[in-house]
Amino acid sequence: MTRAANADHEPFLYDAWYVAGWATDLKPGERIGRTFLNQPIVLFRTASGDVGALEDRCCHRAMQLSHGHVEGEILRCTYHGLEFGTDGICSRIPAQEKIPKTACVRSYPLVEQDAMLWIWMGDPSKADAERIPSHHYHNDPKWAWRGAHFPVNGNWELLVDNLMDLSHLPYIHPNTIGGNPELHFKTKTETTKLPNGVKVERRMPASVPPPTYIDAKGFKGLVDRWQEIEFMPVMIRIHTGACDVDTGAYEGKRDHGFSMLGFHGITPETERTTHYFWSMATNILDGDIPDVVFEQTARTFKEDQEVLELQQVRMEADPNRPLIDIASDVGGRQARQLIRKLIRAQHEEEAREVA
Amino acid sequence: MTRAANADHEPFLYDAWYVAGWATDLKPGERIGRTFLNQPIVLFRTASGDVGALEDRCCHRAMQLSHGHVEGEILRCTYHGLEFGTDGICSRIPAQEKIPKTACVRSYPLVEQDAMLWIWMGDPSKADAERIPSHHYHNDPKWAWRGAHFPVNGNWELLVDNLMDLSHLPYIHPNTIGGNPELHFKTKTETTKLPNGVKVERRMPASVPPPTYIDAKGFKGLVDRWQEIEFMPVMIRIHTGACDVDTGAYEGKRDHGFSMLGFHGITPETERTTHYFWSMATNILDGDIPDVVFEQTARTFKEDQEVLELQQVRMEADPNRPLIDIASDVGGRQARQLIRKLIRAQHEEEAREVA
Amino acid sequence: MTRAANADHEPFLYDAWYVAGWATDLKPGERIGRTFLNQPIVLFRTASGDVGALEDRCCHRAMQLSHGHVEGEILRCTYHGLEFGTDGICSRIPAQEKIPKTACVRSYPLVEQDAMLWIWMGDPSKADAERIPSHHYHNDPKWAWRGAHFPVNGNWELLVDNLMDLSHLPYIHPNTIGGNPELHFKTKTETTKLPNGVKVERRMPASVPPPTYIDAKGFKGLVDRWQEIEFMPVMIRIHTGACDVDTGAYEGKRDHGFSMLGFHGITPETERTTHYFWSMATNILDGDIPDVVFEQTARTFKEDQEVLELQQVRMEADPNRPLIDIASDVGGRQARQLIRKLIRAQHEEEAREVA
Repeated sequence: MTRAANADHEPFLYDAWYVAGWATDLKPGERIGRTFLNQPIVLFRTASGDVGALEDRCCHRAMQLSHGHVEGEILRCTYHGLEFGTDGICSRIPAQEKIPKTACVRSYPLVEQDAMLWIWMGDPSKADAERIPSHHYHNDPKWAWRGAHFPVNGNWELLVDNLMDLSHLPYIHPNTIGGNPELHFKTKTETTKLPNGVKVERRMPASVPPPTYIDAKGFKGLVDRWQEIEFMPVMIRIHTGACDVDTGAYEGKRDHGFSMLGFHGITPETERTTHYFWSMATNILDGDIPDVVFEQTARTFKEDQEVLELQQVRMEADPNRPLIDIASDVGGRQARQLIRKLIRAQHEEEAREVA
Repeated sequence: MTRAANADHEPFLYDAWYVAGWATDLKPGERIGRTFLNQPIVLFRTASGDVGALEDRCCHRAMQLSHGHVEGEILRCTYHGLEFGTDGICSRIPAQEKIPKTACVRSYPLVEQDAMLWIWMGDPSKADAERIPSHHYHNDPKWAWRGAHFPVNGNWELLVDNLMDLSHLPYIHPNTIGGNPELHFKTKTETTKLPNGVKVERRMPASVPPPTYIDAKGFKGLVDRWQEIEFMPVMIRIHTGACDVDTGAYEGKRDHGFSMLGFHGITPETERTTHYFWSMATNILDGDIPDVVFEQTARTFKEDQEVLELQQVRMEADPNRPLIDIASDVGGRQARQLIRKLIRAQHEEEAREVA
Repeated sequence: MTRAANADHEPFLYDAWYVAGWATDLKPGERIGRTFLNQPIVLFRTASGDVGALEDRCCHRAMQLSHGHVEGEILRCTYHGLEFGTDGICSRIPAQEKIPKTACVRSYPLVEQDAMLWIWMGDPSKADAERIPSHHYHNDPKWAWRGAHFPVNGNWELLVDNLMDLSHLPYIHPNTIGGNPELHFKTKTETTKLPNGVKVERRMPASVPPPTYIDAKGFKGLVDRWQEIEFMPVMIRIHTGACDVDTGAYEGKRDHGFSMLGFHGITPETERTTHYFWSMATNILDGDIPDVVFEQTARTFKEDQEVLELQQVRMEADPNRPLIDIASDVGGRQARQLIRKLIRAQHEEEAREVA
């Protein structure tokens, strides 16, 4: 793994669990190629249901293993037929009896949890599956949810910024979850540092509900609305919703209201592109998340995709040019500071190991 | 603005007025993003009809302002709602009372004249609207005209070369304005230096008129034909036309003949791409420029576009490799020398200012 | 010509004859632009049938001559009408009597032989047409053949590897010429160094014939199958085929069996792309090569194209990262060693000439 000489220029946090895909992306016998943190990876699921993540480059002639075939418990390279297990060790070479020890490809820790596949791109000895953020909503029958995978043509930290500061809602998403610009204009944001995260809260009491809320829940009048954002490297959970005005929303009585629980897995693909794995859960159950909520959410996040792409073009053209911060940037800035702190710690630890 | 260390390698002349668009490109309330001299710009027209040119990058998060919205006299960023006037000063930041002085984007002098928008990309203190080349034909009822905007995948100086040497007409444009190769082969070119420009003249007395001329004017026999080219940094005016033979064309009596008055605004987009804003005017009036002339001119200039793209590919591959000049290159060479002289002067002036 | 400072990093062997095209690619009066070894070339055939290869860049304004027009024995530049013979010397400049000696473009030795055009990209004084590899099958009425031209998005040496090691057949080409993986798995490969080449042989006695063989020849039972590969820089000839079992295939009695004689002209276009000129000949005659054989061969080579493109992506990402060799790589490795030896000799000779 090549690292930037200086932690300030390191684009990635390696020692973290990232969402690599949805569990349903891979049926037994299937494989898929994806790039994470600039490293091409093949994900596959064996006949017995195990999942593996290998470097997507055969050690023989650099063929992409993601074009190979799963058979039983191995992945076979499509070019000359070398076979690899989920541990990356070559178990068979055509027309050759002896298999040298160098015949192997890098394997990455990969864990299936909460209907997601989580990958560890850093030092495998530090991969502790206990530290994967739990997202029990995907297993809780009181919540209905659906997931998606959006490719984003923008740096992953731009997506963190985007999600940590919802003051953009009235401008980018007026037709779905946005609502009245003047309302957002006046709403203050509370930001709290967590031990390994950042929390942002906004409240809009006695406000007009946005279109998606009305479509999903049928609110007739004003609502007490909330936005609660929790960042843990590198995912963001956003709980937004509303109850009829003065019915206890701000005292924690929300079951009678409308809740949208968004999960946002932010996995860098390259310095300039990002895998955006998101799910949306609601407390309104009729077997599945209401189509209207999922469709409007997907449309909303497409709008964000476009914004990040437009930003990325300008950022790339002059990456070191200063920008100004405004009041609503506090949450995003704290998230970026935490990311930078973790990247610096990662560099210092590596320096110690080398010394 | 980053400038090349050496004037000889500077690709652009900054201190000049360039065509940024047609006045009709922007109705009140509209905005458009374009890049000039490598700088992304948003052009917009306010409700009251004023036009503005701002850097197309919000000072907050680098969002492209050309995706924003004009409301009244301001342009609002579509991401977080910051508002800017035509002067580039931010007049409103959501959820924030105080607006810091750093909240502004660069604004560029932009002038509407002769149905065109003219932009000054250099030092704003040197922008003198009096020096914008006048092109009264766009306002003169004796002339009918139509304009167009062609993107060219080639360096802007290649377009200058192309227009200053019309000996290419019989080879590139045989089906429209070209004419007989042997005729062009023998035609000599007169070149004159002007105080701030270059003039080129060619005469083809008693010659066969090219197809467009016959289609437009209905010439039955030979004609006295002329080509008069005037370069002023950075536009070119080309007056071509013909009268029936021996009816006074070369003594200035041309009203009874056929005149095509071409305006060519050459605005660099990047080192390798160019905005080509051209108009064609004729003295044949029936309310509008004849369709046949405009269509054939557009087809002709498309042929030039293709040539410049093919040249650009070879030029880029080996930019410093020598080329040979031929007799007909005099006008183009003088235009390039004048451009280089102005770029050198621009560099020397900047060096003095720094000292 | 720019050469790498070190022979080990030189991507091309210049002093060699390369296939530039099929003789039928150019009728009298036609021209075509192609890039070989990073050099853009225009190939053309004059009215009298001569063929020429010139640098595809006019010496005047760098226009691509491949967009020009052949008239009689010259190629005329489409921009300003300069005319060049097959020797690259300019014979006419419009509006100018005198033609300077510098008005010329580089010409390359080009020879028509065995229905192919062969070009010499290195020092012209070393171009010896006697050394062009003979391929008499294209002129022999006992063989029927057809040729093709495939663009490959991969480095030319990857194509050498591919063709020198046919152990990939069962994995990449199971539907055409592949056959049983287990069979290939056990087949040993004999490799022999030739004075200026490498020879590889594989035998599969008493084996099940692959689909293409059955489709073409109608084998009913087991066959004695052979694969004989001959590399000469830079082409590969592959003779594969089969006879009914125990009918003399390995004693040279093959006329009663099924033979496929493949010619593979491997001409680098750039470091990362390759012209693949191949032909397939068979001994089954009914005026032409059977459609089924040609179609299945073309489909087979398309499969190789895809593999090389997938390899190229990974190779480019980390060109110096080691790969491991396996038993079947002997032939390919020897071919690469010979190529490298010739490139080193080329560099040493140039160094001597400079000294």
